[in-house]
Amino acid sequence: MSATRQQRLGEYMAEKGFSAVAVNAGPSLTYLTGLHFHLMERPVVIVFTLADDPTIILPKLEQAKLDHLPFPARVYAYGESPAEWSNTFHDALERLNLSGREVGVEPRQLRLLEYDYLRLACGNAKFNDGSEIFAALRSIKDTEEIASMRKAVAIAEAALEATLPMVKIGVAEKDIASELFLQLIRHGSDTTLPFSPIVSGGPNGANPHAQPSARQLVAGDLLVIDWGANSGGYMSDITRTFAVGKIDAEAEKIHKIVQQANAAGRAAGRPGLSCGAVDKTTRKVIEEAGYGQFFTHRTGHGIGMECHEEPYMRGDNKQILEAGMTYTVEPGIYLAGRNGVRIEDDVLMTADGAESLSTMSREIRVVG
Amino acid sequence: MSATRQQRLGEYMAEKGFSAVAVNAGPSLTYLTGLHFHLMERPVVIVFTLADDPTIILPKLEQAKLDHLPFPARVYAYGESPAEWSNTFHDALERLNLSGREVGVEPRQLRLLEYDYLRLACGNAKFNDGSEIFAALRSIKDTEEIASMRKAVAIAEAALEATLPMVKIGVAEKDIASELFLQLIRHGSDTTLPFSPIVSGGPNGANPHAQPSARQLVAGDLLVIDWGANSGGYMSDITRTFAVGKIDAEAEKIHKIVQQANAAGRAAGRPGLSCGAVDKTTRKVIEEAGYGQFFTHRTGHGIGMECHEEPYMRGDNKQILEAGMTYTVEPGIYLAGRNGVRIEDDVLMTADGAESLSTMSREIRVVG
Repeated sequence: MSATRQQRLGEYMAEKGFSAVAVNAGPSLTYLTGLHFHLMERPVVIVFTLADDPTIILPKLEQAKLDHLPFPARVYAYGESPAEWSNTFHDALERLNLSGREVGVEPRQLRLLEYDYLRLACGNAKFNDGSEIFAALRSIKDTEEIASMRKAVAIAEAALEATLPMVKIGVAEKDIASELFLQLIRHGSDTTLPFSPIVSGGPNGANPHAQPSARQLVAGDLLVIDWGANSGGYMSDITRTFAVGKIDAEAEKIHKIVQQANAAGRAAGRPGLSCGAVDKTTRKVIEEAGYGQFFTHRTGHGIGMECHEEPYMRGDNKQILEAGMTYTVEPGIYLAGRNGVRIEDDVLMTADGAESLSTMSREIRVVG
Repeated sequence: MSATRQQRLGEYMAEKGFSAVAVNAGPSLTYLTGLHFHLMERPVVIVFTLADDPTIILPKLEQAKLDHLPFPARVYAYGESPAEWSNTFHDALERLNLSGREVGVEPRQLRLLEYDYLRLACGNAKFNDGSEIFAALRSIKDTEEIASMRKAVAIAEAALEATLPMVKIGVAEKDIASELFLQLIRHGSDTTLPFSPIVSGGPNGANPHAQPSARQLVAGDLLVIDWGANSGGYMSDITRTFAVGKIDAEAEKIHKIVQQANAAGRAAGRPGLSCGAVDKTTRKVIEEAGYGQFFTHRTGHGIGMECHEEPYMRGDNKQILEAGMTYTVEPGIYLAGRNGVRIEDDVLMTADGAESLSTMSREIRVVG
């Protein structure tokens, strides 16, 4: 698998004029090699070129991870003293003759730590933004990746169902969040969640990125729960909004509007359409209902090995949807000081349209 | 608290000749401001200068986090389209006149993403490694930080005790790791652990960074468990090695040697001594017992808001220990194909010596 992916990388590199691509510890490195490294004080970098086997620079302490490497590579391992790391990078990269050449990097992942070692070891190489290549590689999911994403969705949905019985008037947001976290792990999520669950009731729901607080649920709250699981390194990210006891007419109204926007957004996607069009279709429902100014964020983001990745469902994004892409549709209405609603699904682009991987009911559900 | 810390930052900046310091989402930003942001595709940067209030650049979506900011700041918030982010950075930084000045950054935390926005917005500023400043600020822990670290240790020790009853012959490493994870959360750890617990039995223990596998414990295994908790953003990191049933004479011998090295290392630290001396004292015990070549890593690392931070207990590190520093002492012996031992404690430098925050018995304990 890594061989095929590296071959596709080579094709993109040739197309974009990159002589090399350098990745550090993170999802793109894992995608291309099957290896897992943490971002630590000891840099791990792999350099891919068009002509040669990949060059791997890593701490000796991590070298055992290469024992069953399924592709040929040149390995340069360094010891515990940072004083020698620069030499190791130099030894590793000298023979690639990258001076004057274009080297693609990933600005969202590469730190100055690795960049400085690379820069010093590569002479006058030109380091350029290679994000497009990584996005092109990773945004089209293969069968196995889609299976992992379905599993991440199933774990998340089952974990929420197992949590809902304790969601009652008088229970604190953060206690619900803790229980949901445990249920995610118990239902099989990897322990590195895509993000800590958001549980925000009443006025707290008006902040899309609220942290679960000590506030206890009261009757009349709208309750936003935004959560996800990690299955084999692939993420899910779902939101549902609940009614705590009896809610008022406006709360019911905005939930209905967001539900319609979510349905329109899920249905909108098809190969050949722009990401911007998905945002516009979704947003239009909320705008026409008179709440446009209260939908304060983009409609969604790509999802896969990272919870947020390309493609972004943003009005100004002209990127074209292709089969195999996966992204969220998550319209919301946020009324400061009162309450908020968001309904989020994970959508897969298929050859002829869009399939929502998440299927839990989006109707308002009364808890408490 | 953030005011005092920012004042100390200013003193270090003046001393080192930095006109400004720029931090992105991460522990140093949290240390200096009390704010929490995730590393995401939307950059968050705070620039501290000597003459002016801090400048905060962040997404509008996160702006609510500044509602109760306990210090004055100039805030520049950007919208959802990356096309406008560059302008926001420019507006924010123009008035600081940093062209030609030195700006300190943290290469281990700053990504090219933030660096490129900063570079473009700051004219000809010189971005230099400010790691020393962040290390100087964060490596001396105050009373509150030490209390959090004690709590992180107590949570970790209690979680392991609660896990040990299920550690038996025939149980898989990864099942022990899952249970330990749940116990950490149940005992009060924040859900973002310092790292996923390492549980490695028999030959797997010979890899210091092994991932818990499906391998089941067998009689005669040495079992290495390396785990930690997070309490209020402060980490613990402890290792104990257990005997699964009856172990052979060499396993007993290497455990005893590592236990002696750990005791020597814990006792070695005192203010005024170099970090290198702690490594040497620890390593000498293992070398004199004839196993020097099998202790393949440094003796330890600083610990606090990050699991690995300054100061590093490495033979060539001349950095001087000061009261308030916290670091690990974790000697090990790794016999490839056979087994491994590591015993790790978290040590606090006090005015007159070293106190181990972790206190769980280091004697070999038989499980299974």
